[in-house]
Amino acid sequence: MKRPELNEQAARRTGHERVSVEPSASLTELDIRDLAKGAAFLGSGGGGDPYAATLQLLAMLENGAEVRLINIADLANDALVAPCGWMGAPTVGEEKLSNGREAGVGLKMLERLMGRRVDALIASEIGGSNALAPLILAASQGLPVVDGDGMGRAFPEAQMVTYNIYGLSPNPVVLSDTQGNCISMQTVSAAESERFGRQIAVAMGGACHVFDYACSGREIKQYSVRGTVTLAIGIGRAMREAKKAKRDPLEALFSYLRSTSYYCHAGALFDGRIIDVRRDTSGGFAVGSLTIEAFGAGAGTVEVKFQNENLRANAGPRLLATVPDIITVLDRETADTITTERLRYGQRVKLIGASVPPILRSPEALAILGPQAFGYSGKYQPIEELNAWR
Amino acid sequence: MKRPELNEQAARRTGHERVSVEPSASLTELDIRDLAKGAAFLGSGGGGDPYAATLQLLAMLENGAEVRLINIADLANDALVAPCGWMGAPTVGEEKLSNGREAGVGLKMLERLMGRRVDALIASEIGGSNALAPLILAASQGLPVVDGDGMGRAFPEAQMVTYNIYGLSPNPVVLSDTQGNCISMQTVSAAESERFGRQIAVAMGGACHVFDYACSGREIKQYSVRGTVTLAIGIGRAMREAKKAKRDPLEALFSYLRSTSYYCHAGALFDGRIIDVRRDTSGGFAVGSLTIEAFGAGAGTVEVKFQNENLRANAGPRLLATVPDIITVLDRETADTITTERLRYGQRVKLIGASVPPILRSPEALAILGPQAFGYSGKYQPIEELNAWR
Repeated sequence: MKRPELNEQAARRTGHERVSVEPSASLTELDIRDLAKGAAFLGSGGGGDPYAATLQLLAMLENGAEVRLINIADLANDALVAPCGWMGAPTVGEEKLSNGREAGVGLKMLERLMGRRVDALIASEIGGSNALAPLILAASQGLPVVDGDGMGRAFPEAQMVTYNIYGLSPNPVVLSDTQGNCISMQTVSAAESERFGRQIAVAMGGACHVFDYACSGREIKQYSVRGTVTLAIGIGRAMREAKKAKRDPLEALFSYLRSTSYYCHAGALFDGRIIDVRRDTSGGFAVGSLTIEAFGAGAGTVEVKFQNENLRANAGPRLLATVPDIITVLDRETADTITTERLRYGQRVKLIGASVPPILRSPEALAILGPQAFGYSGKYQPIEELNAWR
Repeated sequence: MKRPELNEQAARRTGHERVSVEPSASLTELDIRDLAKGAAFLGSGGGGDPYAATLQLLAMLENGAEVRLINIADLANDALVAPCGWMGAPTVGEEKLSNGREAGVGLKMLERLMGRRVDALIASEIGGSNALAPLILAASQGLPVVDGDGMGRAFPEAQMVTYNIYGLSPNPVVLSDTQGNCISMQTVSAAESERFGRQIAVAMGGACHVFDYACSGREIKQYSVRGTVTLAIGIGRAMREAKKAKRDPLEALFSYLRSTSYYCHAGALFDGRIIDVRRDTSGGFAVGSLTIEAFGAGAGTVEVKFQNENLRANAGPRLLATVPDIITVLDRETADTITTERLRYGQRVKLIGASVPPILRSPEALAILGPQAFGYSGKYQPIEELNAWR
């Protein structure tokens, strides 16, 4: 059940030390902007568009707030670390903005339930807007943010997290909304926690702030995906610098990803125009599919299925990529990520794929977040085996 | 907002001292059986059929457990008193039985959140199965049960309780299910508490155990409906003794009710056969209506609308009774209460009405549990003005 060695190996091989943000450094405005771009890419279409959260955080920095990043290795073993983020359909998050107080209400309840103060925050998922959620709370509470997360990307369901895969309990789970309501849960399983949490997110207007899997610094060291804040910043920075130098941001993206151990298999899956988007906001998810048609005559179409996140890309019967590997739609001109709630008919896009950290490809992980966990038949096939890149 | 005097007056006038159960007495098997019959009547069709809970409690008594009843006047002002009961559609409770542990899980969480032990339990509502819920928990935990409740009958929604009417907060609300899941809520209003609680009850399989409005002994003295356990026992006993003496149990019921200050306006509303029952279990409620046809030719029909509880009885355009007054369907032969989830085509029934404690008829109370709170137009009309009894 416990497989820290997988993670340790991954940590040793990760390329995240290469970017400029030093452990325990304060993030700059540029870091935040780069992080938002990188997190949007890593979100595999989900985690919510980081636009509003970026503005919120930059406004806080302007007013003197600080976001301190801690390297996982520097965490005290007995620190209490609280993973956090938002739950619900990103289609809802796009229209129903945070009032900036939800997470604080939840933090207070979490500390009451744990009987002690929280020492550090960490993103539940590094994908999309949720990469910024702990930073916003940290800036308002004077807490540090751990450089890592529990998914190495974004996933639609709360139990699809390394802490669950490796046996930690989600309890107590604390959900809070924009009205000031706060609900905490002690459930008998991670699946029950997701099921109740989703119902409550719907009752809270379709989205709510969540704390779950609060654990020790030692457990964070063993089970989280390390260095992903720095990696996301690196992605954003690589693309920004390329644009500034009039180089191809996509090539810069691939080049950066290939320099990391987590996302080293990366490349384009398809290129074309969106000719169909089907999307339903139901049960607390944005669920649907999109069809991209290639520009050349007879060059065919690709269908991408999503549940908040892009899950699977197919060119007719041929599988191009499948969850847990990253499948992201980028704007063809700007190379900006288009999250699933912003997909529209007529957009000219590139479909990009990338491998995920090895900790997400273990048999235990695939049982919880692989294709079969989403109802697809057949075994998981790594993206690098499905595509002849490099 | 605070109107203890209403309640004090009612307490002074109540006839509950007449029955044999002395303050701080232990309830006997016969008391429990009488309580079940009386509570079923007071439930106005709701609160759930007490049959299963009665068996559960009697089995506990047989195994040596004890149920101690405290007179409200004997409560210490600084005692922590926890109102409790079950939430959800009684149609669900009929098929999904308690495993006997739900309330204990909730009690532990409540004590953790309050930072102290609970000193006594009290029924959230004296109607139906919920009159027995605190007794079952009390018997297993060695806690006393307070002789009173928060409704003087049963109501479908959690905020329809005197504690809310007179300004107490429901927080923390603790919900627990048969699986061992426990959810606690800190909501911004009683209405939000009901709304979230109902969603959670649905997610918990349609019914769950609830603690809310935990408060001090002083607040219980000010705002609860006093003596209703004893009154319910008195109702059951009067009918049982009448049956034993081959007297009419209905006459015994009316005679007993008329001797109380709470339920003193009581009588038959209609007599006939059920010719139609429409019932939907949806949104955590059993909602519908029944039609009763009189036996004589051309004697007409009466329609009763219900939401868990019977809310309103009409003979064509003529209103016979309306919430919050009690409207209960009794089996014509046995005078046993037929709760709304047990209504069936062809049952031969008497429709009985009774007034409610004055604390439920104040303007503040009617705003929360009067006809308009259920979407009916027009002012509340007391049952004694609608019917020419005595």
